Amino acid sequence: MTSNDKKIKIGLLGVGTVGTGVVKVLTNHPVLEIKKIGARDLNKKRDAVIKKELLTSDLKSIINDPEIEVIVEMLGGLNPSRELVIEAIKNKKHIVTANKDLIATHGAELFDLARENNVQIQFEASVCGGIPIINTLKQTLNANRFSKIMGILNGTTNYILSEMLNRGISYEQCLKEAQDKGYAEPDPTNDISGKDSAYKLSILASIAFGERIKINDVYNEGIEKITPNDIAISEDLGYRIKLVGIAKKEEDKIDIRVHPAFIKKTSTLASVFGANNGVLIEGNLIGELTLIGAGAGEFPTASSVAGDLNMLVAHITSAKGPNPQFVCKHTHYAKIKPISETTNSYFVRLRTDDKAGVVGQVGTIFGKHEVSINTLTQRGSNPDSSASITILTHLVKEEKLQAAIKEIEKSNIVKQVENVIRVFE
Amino acid sequence: MTSNDKKIKIGLLGVGTVGTGVVKVLTNHPVLEIKKIGARDLNKKRDAVIKKELLTSDLKSIINDPEIEVIVEMLGGLNPSRELVIEAIKNKKHIVTANKDLIATHGAELFDLARENNVQIQFEASVCGGIPIINTLKQTLNANRFSKIMGILNGTTNYILSEMLNRGISYEQCLKEAQDKGYAEPDPTNDISGKDSAYKLSILASIAFGERIKINDVYNEGIEKITPNDIAISEDLGYRIKLVGIAKKEEDKIDIRVHPAFIKKTSTLASVFGANNGVLIEGNLIGELTLIGAGAGEFPTASSVAGDLNMLVAHITSAKGPNPQFVCKHTHYAKIKPISETTNSYFVRLRTDDKAGVVGQVGTIFGKHEVSINTLTQRGSNPDSSASITILTHLVKEEKLQAAIKEIEKSNIVKQVENVIRVFE
Repeated sequence: MTSNDKKIKIGLLGVGTVGTGVVKVLTNHPVLEIKKIGARDLNKKRDAVIKKELLTSDLKSIINDPEIEVIVEMLGGLNPSRELVIEAIKNKKHIVTANKDLIATHGAELFDLARENNVQIQFEASVCGGIPIINTLKQTLNANRFSKIMGILNGTTNYILSEMLNRGISYEQCLKEAQDKGYAEPDPTNDISGKDSAYKLSILASIAFGERIKINDVYNEGIEKITPNDIAISEDLGYRIKLVGIAKKEEDKIDIRVHPAFIKKTSTLASVFGANNGVLIEGNLIGELTLIGAGAGEFPTASSVAGDLNMLVAHITSAKGPNPQFVCKHTHYAKIKPISETTNSYFVRLRTDDKAGVVGQVGTIFGKHEVSINTLTQRGSNPDSSASITILTHLVKEEKLQAAIKEIEKSNIVKQVENVIRVFE
Repeated sequence: MTSNDKKIKIGLLGVGTVGTGVVKVLTNHPVLEIKKIGARDLNKKRDAVIKKELLTSDLKSIINDPEIEVIVEMLGGLNPSRELVIEAIKNKKHIVTANKDLIATHGAELFDLARENNVQIQFEASVCGGIPIINTLKQTLNANRFSKIMGILNGTTNYILSEMLNRGISYEQCLKEAQDKGYAEPDPTNDISGKDSAYKLSILASIAFGERIKINDVYNEGIEKITPNDIAISEDLGYRIKLVGIAKKEEDKIDIRVHPAFIKKTSTLASVFGANNGVLIEGNLIGELTLIGAGAGEFPTASSVAGDLNMLVAHITSAKGPNPQFVCKHTHYAKIKPISETTNSYFVRLRTDDKAGVVGQVGTIFGKHEVSINTLTQRGSNPDSSASITILTHLVKEEKLQAAIKEIEKSNIVKQVENVIRVFE
């Protein structure tokens, strides 16, 4: 599988931010080879990783290339994506797509066609960038009956709401800043209005509940009306305002909608800040499971595209033996760093006589072993008239800290070293 | 694939809590059939779902049954699990196991043997119960280079630390209560000492970093020495004490260890409470991804076993066509509940004249539309001498709330209905 002739050939449609990420990730791939890259404008300035000789503006030549087995569609939007994907499926090519509009709007048609033509459509990258939610629902969690999906599915609006909370500034100001920084699109309508979240939610709900959903049936309401005042009051009341997508399976209906909502500050989703996304799913076997991570961006989305390609490679090549994804390929043993060589901060709690000079003596021993103290607090008298000293150190090698502790224990300065706990900053 | 003759036959080794869950989940499975269930004691009282005629104490008869294609090993421990799994692999049977001791201790031997015999070993259930982390690392996230895994990997210790925090009680008292309630094993040594977490961490690190790890190289330190005092001080300092497993890929070594640690209260893992588990992974493409869910228990663990079985079924049956896990099987459209029929609590913010009687008039209109008020707050005068009234309602059908809002807007009682935001309790 090392000669190029034997590699699985793929064709890319579209080479914007995510497409460029995919090309970078697939460089020197052992099994996959990008044969053609379709772009509408060949003269646009592109990252050097995009080889000019692979570029073509003749998108149909890619989907009609008999050598190409897999089409990676990253054009976005419905036109000409839909038409090209349909033709590619009819040409018996597997599809990997990052296009949520396409799947949410025309999924039914495409999946029916794929079934007829014995090919797979993989679309992990269409929902929540790098968060591995779609394949997980289809595979490892497949035995569950799902009752609820609840998520923060749009990074732009979550970034705006987070900034409004942290800085007390208005929606309009946040949006403008987000656009200036490139976090929000020049036309952010789909993000702000909840439509983008509705696309993603309808895809997830359709998989989880096993029913098709017409995207226009999904209610969406945006964050335009949220004021700093609403946010301040919600915090006072113990809530946080998030743009939430929620889908619940009821007896004969699905309650599915996207709108701003008060959610409890203590809930896991309330801790999803900035441009991150979070998805909570509730299944009869697993209970609640929450995934939190990067919901967009060049590399997180490319990660999901590459993951789908890996799964197609496994499918295409595994007919004769085990699925290569589940074969252990490493046989050497790792070198393990001993705990004494690790570097940490430390929390140290000492019980001492409540008398002058102890702090100085402890500090001297720490200093001798190059343990630098961050904060030191002496806390009141204990019932036995001893005092507690608690110390947070700066980063130091474990063996130095342990040497200092050993010396303190051997000395008569303290009654007891009561605890030493490593601190992750 | 509906006649039993054509179903894929599986043999279960062990039928304790998780095994019983697996039998329940596989009841009436369209493609899988449990042919034999091995148990060491046939007379033990069992759930009625375990059919007596499938039970045998002759475990070898299961792994030698030529009809059985997949062995599900849920005996736990190393003996006789190792020996039986080895023989099953030599008999060309695929393995699904929930046994972390076995994989962490003898994984190298078993994976080598599986490769030689062209079979797969699936072990999603061996780490963190229902959290889908192993297959996700191997499949969708496969294109990442991972640099860090950090997790709360043991529910018993996390439950104890959570209770110590919430109730200020001692480690000893928490442990005793956990044992009385059945949350902790009669011999909790492996949980408390961090050994259980070390098993799980070494499995995850081995997959993520692509290197084998000798379980005895993994440093583990338990929670026995943590006092309510340590917990109180950590909270004061902005940290939370958790039993953390951490593995970091360094240039030529792996830093891998399990010990109590101070982690920032604001970090996602700090929000993992009770018997839940949480895993954070850091990859070059996805950045940080966190999964939080049930780390143990009959059904979460059975979910992972069933997920692995689904993947083996897909593998066994997909040689001739697409992987059935990625074929859309539903073709009907869901009935969607209109937003007007949904039931929510609501936050309502009104701007009113700062004069007597307004609250009463608002309350009357809400009452007329059967909207019950939970809390109502009138907040000071605004610069234009108007006042703000904020209301949290009890649960009510959206159409009733909207009717009340419409009536308030039409009346002259308030200057403006400034916002209406749904509240998820």
